[in-house]
Amino acid sequence: MSLEAPTPLLAEESAPTTRCRILATAAGYFREIGYQKTTVADIARTLKMSPANVYRFFDSKKAINEAVLERLIGEIEALVSEIAARPGLTATERLVAAIDLLHRDCTRRCEEFPRLHEMVEAAMGESWEVCRHHIARITAGFERIVREGVERGEFEAADPAEAAACIHAGIVRYTHPLLVGQAALQPVPSLEAMTAFLLRGLAPRGR
Amino acid sequence: MSLEAPTPLLAEESAPTTRCRILATAAGYFREIGYQKTTVADIARTLKMSPANVYRFFDSKKAINEAVLERLIGEIEALVSEIAARPGLTATERLVAAIDLLHRDCTRRCEEFPRLHEMVEAAMGESWEVCRHHIARITAGFERIVREGVERGEFEAADPAEAAACIHAGIVRYTHPLLVGQAALQPVPSLEAMTAFLLRGLAPRGR
Repeated sequence: MSLEAPTPLLAEESAPTTRCRILATAAGYFREIGYQKTTVADIARTLKMSPANVYRFFDSKKAINEAVLERLIGEIEALVSEIAARPGLTATERLVAAIDLLHRDCTRRCEEFPRLHEMVEAAMGESWEVCRHHIARITAGFERIVREGVERGEFEAADPAEAAACIHAGIVRYTHPLLVGQAALQPVPSLEAMTAFLLRGLAPRGR
Repeated sequence: MSLEAPTPLLAEESAPTTRCRILATAAGYFREIGYQKTTVADIARTLKMSPANVYRFFDSKKAINEAVLERLIGEIEALVSEIAARPGLTATERLVAAIDLLHRDCTRRCEEFPRLHEMVEAAMGESWEVCRHHIARITAGFERIVREGVERGEFEAADPAEAAACIHAGIVRYTHPLLVGQAALQPVPSLEAMTAFLLRGLAPRGR
């Protein structure tokens, strides 16, 4: 056959690794000096490569920011998906666990890595595509839980997708990087009280 | 009697007026050039008074910011109180009207007066006392509506104060100056869908 797969060039073979090394180095700089002060030249120097080589993997500094952010929130999305699919739990337990995870993750990042948190804040503020996708993916995890709860008769929701979106919007005070940092604006209801209130919105009528 | 009220000095008699003129002038500057660039000297010059005279009424620039903000949000609090007390409406209607008002007010300010909005954003970010009071007063309006709804059998809530706080926290995506500006982060559920979902949390069981 003449249509054989082309032999990859050496650079392309090592591409995933180099990409990962660039992102790990960028994330380290973001933590230490903040994402705004980090330059492509910093990243290239640390990796002993030319900035031009970095640009072979990422079109722009913005593309690096987005990829770092994507990796960061990809982890949390995977955890929410795992909770949504976890066997042996009621839909209520899974919803509570997912909400709790989102809150703790955001609070921890805010406290432990304030500079990384800055980047997330800025990304949210700039309404990056990656943030929109993040919201959609978390909401999808909630939707799965709501649908299964409705199937089991545990929840009642005429439109599970909309109910999931309402729950996600309803916990924004506890999971949004721009608001979680405002500890001084307490008191708000406890997350437990808020979650219980939102769950009432899913309770079957006639109970 | 010897304990007569002292005759006020002229300066004190005109104090409320001067205070108001300072605040109106400051608010005008905040709209035009933003609150950060506005100086006490600007305000004093416009009013043909010395900065020292401005400081007789307000300790600091920060005190002026807070007073401008207080006046601004005082208006909205008065409107929410008026809705909470409005006769001839069900508790549901009053809650929907109050939520709608908060959302429209925030959206309008964001669109029409982006610089004034900046100040509100900054104030929220700095967690000023005035913001905490604002949240408490709006929640108090919600609480009045929830309590009356419970009394009429229209709502069910074991703890009306907490339910009111949960509703207020639950609409933050639609009424918080830091989030309302992020139109690009749509879609979120419509405010109507969100309000309906939160109202389900107040619905009497057994319906």
